[in-house]
Amino acid sequence: ERTGHPEVVFGLGKTVDQVETIFARLVEVHGRALVTRATSEMAERVKAKHPDAEYDGQSRLIRFGKPFRKLPGKVAVLTGGTSDIPVAEEAAGTAEWMGCEVDRIYDVGVAGIDRLLTHKDRIREASVVIGVAGMEGALVSVVGGLVRRPVIAVPTSVGYGANLQGITTLLAMMTSCAAGVTVVNIDNGFGAGYQAAMILQLVAEAD
Amino acid sequence: ERTGHPEVVFGLGKTVDQVETIFARLVEVHGRALVTRATSEMAERVKAKHPDAEYDGQSRLIRFGKPFRKLPGKVAVLTGGTSDIPVAEEAAGTAEWMGCEVDRIYDVGVAGIDRLLTHKDRIREASVVIGVAGMEGALVSVVGGLVRRPVIAVPTSVGYGANLQGITTLLAMMTSCAAGVTVVNIDNGFGAGYQAAMILQLVAEAD
Amino acid sequence: ERTGHPEVVFGLGKTVDQVETIFARLVEVHGRALVTRATSEMAERVKAKHPDAEYDGQSRLIRFGKPFRKLPGKVAVLTGGTSDIPVAEEAAGTAEWMGCEVDRIYDVGVAGIDRLLTHKDRIREASVVIGVAGMEGALVSVVGGLVRRPVIAVPTSVGYGANLQGITTLLAMMTSCAAGVTVVNIDNGFGAGYQAAMILQLVAEAD
Amino acid sequence: ERTGHPEVVFGLGKTVDQVETIFARLVEVHGRALVTRATSEMAERVKAKHPDAEYDGQSRLIRFGKPFRKLPGKVAVLTGGTSDIPVAEEAAGTAEWMGCEVDRIYDVGVAGIDRLLTHKDRIREASVVIGVAGMEGALVSVVGGLVRRPVIAVPTSVGYGANLQGITTLLAMMTSCAAGVTVVNIDNGFGAGYQAAMILQLVAEAD
Amino acid sequence: ERTGHPEVVFGLGKTVDQVETIFARLVEVHGRALVTRATSEMAERVKAKHPDAEYDGQSRLIRFGKPFRKLPGKVAVLTGGTSDIPVAEEAAGTAEWMGCEVDRIYDVGVAGIDRLLTHKDRIREASVVIGVAGMEGALVSVVGGLVRRPVIAVPTSVGYGANLQGITTLLAMMTSCAAGVTVVNIDNGFGAGYQAAMILQLVAEAD
Amino acid sequence: ERTGHPEVVFGLGKTVDQVETIFARLVEVHGRALVTRATSEMAERVKAKHPDAEYDGQSRLIRFGKPFRKLPGKVAVLTGGTSDIPVAEEAAGTAEWMGCEVDRIYDVGVAGIDRLLTHKDRIREASVVIGVAGMEGALVSVVGGLVRRPVIAVPTSVGYGANLQGITTLLAMMTSCAAGVTVVNIDNGFGAGYQAAMILQLVAEAD
Amino acid sequence: ERTGHPEVVFGLGKTVDQVETIFARLVEVHGRALVTRATSEMAERVKAKHPDAEYDGQSRLIRFGKPFRKLPGKVAVLTGGTSDIPVAEEAAGTAEWMGCEVDRIYDVGVAGIDRLLTHKDRIREASVVIGVAGMEGALVSVVGGLVRRPVIAVPTSVGYGANLQGITTLLAMMTSCAAGVTVVNIDNGFGAGYQAAMILQLVAEAD
Amino acid sequence: ERTGHPEVVFGLGKTVDQVETIFARLVEVHGRALVTRATSEMAERVKAKHPDAEYDGQSRLIRFGKPFRKLPGKVAVLTGGTSDIPVAEEAAGTAEWMGCEVDRIYDVGVAGIDRLLTHKDRIREASVVIGVAGMEGALVSVVGGLVRRPVIAVPTSVGYGANLQGITTLLAMMTSCAAGVTVVNIDNGFGAGYQAAMILQLVAEAD
Ligand SMILES: Nc1ncnc2c1ncn2[C@@H]1O[C@H](COP(=O)(O)O)[C@@H](O)[C@H]1O
Ligand SMILES: Nc1ncnc2c1ncn2[C@@H]1O[C@H](COP(=O)(O)O)[C@@H](O)[C@H]1O
Ligand SMILES: Nc1ncnc2c1ncn2[C@@H]1O[C@H](COP(=O)(O)O)[C@@H](O)[C@H]1O
Ligand SMILES: Nc1ncnc2c1ncn2[C@@H]1O[C@H](COP(=O)(O)O)[C@@H](O)[C@H]1O
Ligand SMILES: [Mg+2]
Ligand SMILES: [Mg+2]
Ligand SMILES: [Mg+2]
Ligand SMILES: [Mg+2]
Ligand SMILES: [Mg+2]
Ligand SMILES: [Mg+2]
Ligand SMILES: [Mg+2]
Ligand SMILES: [Mg+2]
Repeated sequence: ERTGHPEVVFGLGKTVDQVETIFARLVEVHGRALVTRATSEMAERVKAKHPDAEYDGQSRLIRFGKPFRKLPGKVAVLTGGTSDIPVAEEAAGTAEWMGCEVDRIYDVGVAGIDRLLTHKDRIREASVVIGVAGMEGALVSVVGGLVRRPVIAVPTSVGYGANLQGITTLLAMMTSCAAGVTVVNIDNGFGAGYQAAMILQLVAEAD
Repeated sequence: ERTGHPEVVFGLGKTVDQVETIFARLVEVHGRALVTRATSEMAERVKAKHPDAEYDGQSRLIRFGKPFRKLPGKVAVLTGGTSDIPVAEEAAGTAEWMGCEVDRIYDVGVAGIDRLLTHKDRIREASVVIGVAGMEGALVSVVGGLVRRPVIAVPTSVGYGANLQGITTLLAMMTSCAAGVTVVNIDNGFGAGYQAAMILQLVAEAD
Repeated sequence: ERTGHPEVVFGLGKTVDQVETIFARLVEVHGRALVTRATSEMAERVKAKHPDAEYDGQSRLIRFGKPFRKLPGKVAVLTGGTSDIPVAEEAAGTAEWMGCEVDRIYDVGVAGIDRLLTHKDRIREASVVIGVAGMEGALVSVVGGLVRRPVIAVPTSVGYGANLQGITTLLAMMTSCAAGVTVVNIDNGFGAGYQAAMILQLVAEAD
Repeated sequence: ERTGHPEVVFGLGKTVDQVETIFARLVEVHGRALVTRATSEMAERVKAKHPDAEYDGQSRLIRFGKPFRKLPGKVAVLTGGTSDIPVAEEAAGTAEWMGCEVDRIYDVGVAGIDRLLTHKDRIREASVVIGVAGMEGALVSVVGGLVRRPVIAVPTSVGYGANLQGITTLLAMMTSCAAGVTVVNIDNGFGAGYQAAMILQLVAEAD
Repeated sequence: ERTGHPEVVFGLGKTVDQVETIFARLVEVHGRALVTRATSEMAERVKAKHPDAEYDGQSRLIRFGKPFRKLPGKVAVLTGGTSDIPVAEEAAGTAEWMGCEVDRIYDVGVAGIDRLLTHKDRIREASVVIGVAGMEGALVSVVGGLVRRPVIAVPTSVGYGANLQGITTLLAMMTSCAAGVTVVNIDNGFGAGYQAAMILQLVAEAD
Repeated sequence: ERTGHPEVVFGLGKTVDQVETIFARLVEVHGRALVTRATSEMAERVKAKHPDAEYDGQSRLIRFGKPFRKLPGKVAVLTGGTSDIPVAEEAAGTAEWMGCEVDRIYDVGVAGIDRLLTHKDRIREASVVIGVAGMEGALVSVVGGLVRRPVIAVPTSVGYGANLQGITTLLAMMTSCAAGVTVVNIDNGFGAGYQAAMILQLVAEAD
Repeated sequence: ERTGHPEVVFGLGKTVDQVETIFARLVEVHGRALVTRATSEMAERVKAKHPDAEYDGQSRLIRFGKPFRKLPGKVAVLTGGTSDIPVAEEAAGTAEWMGCEVDRIYDVGVAGIDRLLTHKDRIREASVVIGVAGMEGALVSVVGGLVRRPVIAVPTSVGYGANLQGITTLLAMMTSCAAGVTVVNIDNGFGAGYQAAMILQLVAEAD
Repeated sequence: ERTGHPEVVFGLGKTVDQVETIFARLVEVHGRALVTRATSEMAERVKAKHPDAEYDGQSRLIRFGKPFRKLPGKVAVLTGGTSDIPVAEEAAGTAEWMGCEVDRIYDVGVAGIDRLLTHKDRIREASVVIGVAGMEGALVSVVGGLVRRPVIAVPTSVGYGANLQGITTLLAMMTSCAAGVTVVNIDNGFGAGYQAAMILQLVAEAD
């Protein structure tokens, strides 16, 4: 009986040794593994034994193994600014590793609303939208109103002062005036990508 | 071109007159309408002109009109305690109005884990799980680990002292150690039900 | 030598007697007066002696006397929703009492971005824009990007849960990714209207 | 059609490469550019290609290009203490780059009210006043009462303990008992300078 | 051996019966008593048995008995606005009951700095200054710089929004840039008056 | 007359010299000593003079001397994840030094509830349970419902974003829906181990 | 198999009907029941059917049934002031209903340390100490140092201003400099009494 | 006309050059100077030109010049623990530089109440008491009850977790149940020493 998401390791706060050991065990048991918040040192050690593991320094993901199946539809991952991209890549990389097709639409913050609206059709084509933004997080409110699809908001810790390391963004996204928006923890790109993939998994099973 | 969720009225802070007027317009344009946080006074006024409108005092929803289609699968709505039920009913009533089948599994807080586990299979049968809980919100962490389906967490303002009117629950659910959990605002049953229905809408379109 | 803004009384927390006395003194000295946060009881008492005083129950302003001069340009006052209107009216009424022409553009929240953009030209015609919004306050971020004019943001206490009685909105507006946005206290329509009028006063003096 | 403030780059959190690329593009398109929160490393790289770019280590601004026009009137920039000067210089440098004449009046905190009052006439000559202060931010309350001009308050993160990295100052300035005061984010000298210039731009257009 | 301040009763949260009983005991033992935060109902009950007890509805103090001695010097009690007066009266009434001469200087908030400075000499004549203010509490920073005497700051809960029921004022006063300022709890006029009297008691003993 | 816990030194913020001196004195007076939050440098210095002192780098405890007596029963120490282990070891090491038998049951977080339930009988055999967890702290709610024994919760600072360095966990544990749970400060393994030992001391005295 | 504390009902937020029904079921199954936070209306309804149920308006407890056994030792319940007594009575009443002997030592706040120390021996005779206090909660720090027994701290919401409805007290008790102190939620007398009884239950089983 | 406290420099955030220049000017004008939060580098530079300046690394004070007069009475400076001593020394050193006699009574935290009470008479001999403590700050509540003299509380940032870098201590001291206690900012030993000296200055003038 399978529950949870046992193939995922949260790298933060683990030693390189711990990651190496857990990774090896996961690959043995599941044939696949994902490490989040991995350092390049962790990646080197893992790749020494598993040369097919892929590491991406921006998303800080180590990925190994193929998705069980290619999932239908598309996940659009949007960011407000360029500093939100590492978190967006964590979301995108997670979703891809789980079988999703991802459409990256970056740097479309609402202070330049025309730029965002240029991509309106592309965004509406997605089955699920992940909105990654810092500051006041207005991006997800606007996008939530543009689409009739689930929107997953990821507040980022980008910003300063009244931003309170992302707490303001998190609370603001929570009170978004748009329906159909749910929120994950600050900088938790993994959680958003994972949820998006589970939604598409449901769709896949319905085919 | 249709966007957003125009048939929904947020009753809180509106006058009875405003609700009556907006409701009538929505029914005229869309043939259906949903009022959240409605008072019984609002309901009486609305029903005077639209006798088919249904009001439920616990969920505080006024609902009118049939869903566009019956959506596939099932939404499980869980609560930790009995005081969380009004919020759960807002979620359930919203999802039903949008075409979902809802399975209510109430009062299964983790302090009595056996009672929750009794329903393990029933919970796993759902396509989407909505976890409504106050206090430390532990319910969604446990449920998130039990299922491989999207879990939407609704923190409630039930509790006192360190609960901070639900802020503690909200933050706790955010940091949940289970993946696949996203969160909506405190007491926002509507938002959870709405998101669940949009997920099943995706599934419906894939059929 | 005149400094500050001596003709204004902050009604909140004052007794009806105090307001009556201060009002009479201000009218005597300055020939004009403005009471903010006035109750209808205060208004009745004031109008008994000064029948020309005007009271508006929504903005809760008592106004008396003509502006020194008609100020050039226009102040656009926008709201995200209908519940923000009382605060917007406090801003509008203050600005008008000081000689501004006001253009009210209400209920243009970003969850329906098309509705806001419909008014793009009208907003751009204004010399100063006041954005009144609750929730995540995204309205001012979008508007700040649309115009090259000063935008004054007024967070409102409309909302619940993570909204924290407007504190979330205030902090979110502060971190707005749009430049040219400054912020006043929660529900402080008066402060925004007053600042807008002072800006137009500068323009008037330049004519 | 031009909107927003496209010639400005927020340096914080960007790589030197990103700043170099964006800067070059802005100069090409607009003939001018401003980088805020720039490091000396960014400045060196930018100046290698654009020797006319000017960097100031205190304000951390890289500025390039002439203002479109010289704006009328004057912007007074005040600080409470000497530690507030870097933020004040960000405000002053931004306003100057946009065409404003700036009058710097530094170290006039209210604990020595005589020193501040010495400058009363000079402050009153300004069209717009920017008050930069940490601690309790009392400077802007006093100045707001001295002038009938727009006052823009910039809370700084200078201080310790109960100062909460500037959050206390921000909230205190928000509740200032003086009308005509609006507030920007902690340490956001740029935002204040930018808003001041937009106000004078309005005046310029009226000439 | 006497310690603490045994003759004082904190009325808030006590029943009328409790206050009556404790009051009677204090008068019996000490020949004098002070009740703070007293309701008029408490006052009536107390005066039924002790007709010489004096109740003041604004300060909410019930006072009985003469001070042990007349204390030297003077305590100046200042307020920023008129809404701060009840708290100021609690301070003044406490100090008087303990033998102090009090000089009330009300409504001298810093938004009208000239009005405050008019009283500069009068303030400097005081041995101890109590500054009662809401909002940003700037009054005590200015006064702290004007005098070389102990200044006791009392934040009040007057204000709204960012004022956070006085917490902002409290923190702001704490970070005051003026030395020689200490702070008591929000609305704690009693504590300030009591401390002022203890300072003058020291002076009295030195005579 | 003995009170408090005089043989314990809190190493944090002390110099190596101070720790050395205090340690020597404690050993002289009591024949035993415990240093918490000790650095390896402190340990080296202490062991130079007291070769029998034991240092453990994970728990950061220096322990010296035998417990007065072997205490009856068992203390179960549970953790949610592997990052909670250092804090758990502080609790376990303290309890052992005071004479308790400790049963370590690590990495049994509720996202994998089956793993926790596997240990149900083992947990129920303990006289006192210490639950060490970060994130939402759900572990202690579940365990509190499983046993009829005192549960002491230790929130850890493990986590990010909405976790607020453990404050969220602390508040969440406080509002736990399970009775019989009390809480100590964030990362305070010592406090939990100490309380557990005092409980078993009571039992010991009853034998 | 028995777990948790099934005979206890949390009355807050339940309807009179719900309490009546649950109470009847508990009595049927367990032969005993405890309702916390009960209103007098709940009590009347319950007593109509169960005349032996006892209601106490101060502690707001409805108690029914005898403890399984008389527990050894004594629980001392202390309060700082008289306003803390209702919470203390909730603790005491719960402990008694579970079989404990309780020693009430009320109004021994540390501002009058002599009064507290008068009871030193009596406090030391207790097996478990419950310290109920508002304000800064200093009582438990002092008591924690006086005894070598488990101390359970109950912060109360008594106080105003900086007290933050008990949050300050809760956090202060958490950081108490005395070891052997654990804390429950604000005003949670029940939780403290329950934990105390479970400790004595352990002792009872050891006899 | 002299106001404020012009001979004091706040070293934090100033460059070594700035401190050197200001110091030289102060000595020239006033014949004396005090630098707080001074680094050893600042001290070296200052002493190069003013060999009589004294630097103390613990209090981080640079002091120069004799007090105007020896002040009567005594200031008792108490600390709860040893980590509070640097802040206490800032208070003591400031008071001494202003002419006070200081009695240091360190490490008398309330968890060992006997140790504190040992010094009861010594504490009562002081004219002013400064209580420096971290954690829950209970020391000042106890001391406030022991003496009938002004008590100035200095919260320190010593502690972890729920201590919130001293904010908990600050708020706890504010709500102290003892009258006659006023509070300064976290770690602000200077402010407390300065206020104490101003009180004794009053006494001196009365002689
Ligand atoms: N970036 C992330 N943020 C939050 N949770 C994560 C992240 N990456 C992984 N996780 C969670 O951490 C679990 C693994 O934790 P661990 O067993 O400590 O490695 C995963 O199954 C996820 O639920
Ligand atoms: N209970 C609720 N909580 C939060 N948002 C809601 C709720 N009910 C409705 N809404 C949102 O409010 C919108 C309608 O707002 P309004 O136009 O003010 O009636 C809906 O379209 C939803 O997005
Ligand atoms: N709604 C408002 N919010 C904040 N400040 C206000 C408001 N209305 C008036 N004020 C300010 O309060 C001052 C008058 O205060 P007062 O002397 O107490 O009546 C005015 O001059 C304004 O600066
Ligand atoms: N440690 C300190 N904490 C807070 N304020 C201080 C401290 N030391 C000095 N000050 C204040 O800072 C003023 C000097 O500030 P500055 O002109 O920036 O050197 C002094 O007059 C004091 O009011
Ligand atoms: Mg939508
Ligand atoms: Mg799951
Ligand atoms: Mg703009
Ligand atoms: Mg002004
Ligand atoms: Mg002074
Ligand atoms: Mg239990
Ligand atoms: Mg103890
Ligand atoms: Mg005292």
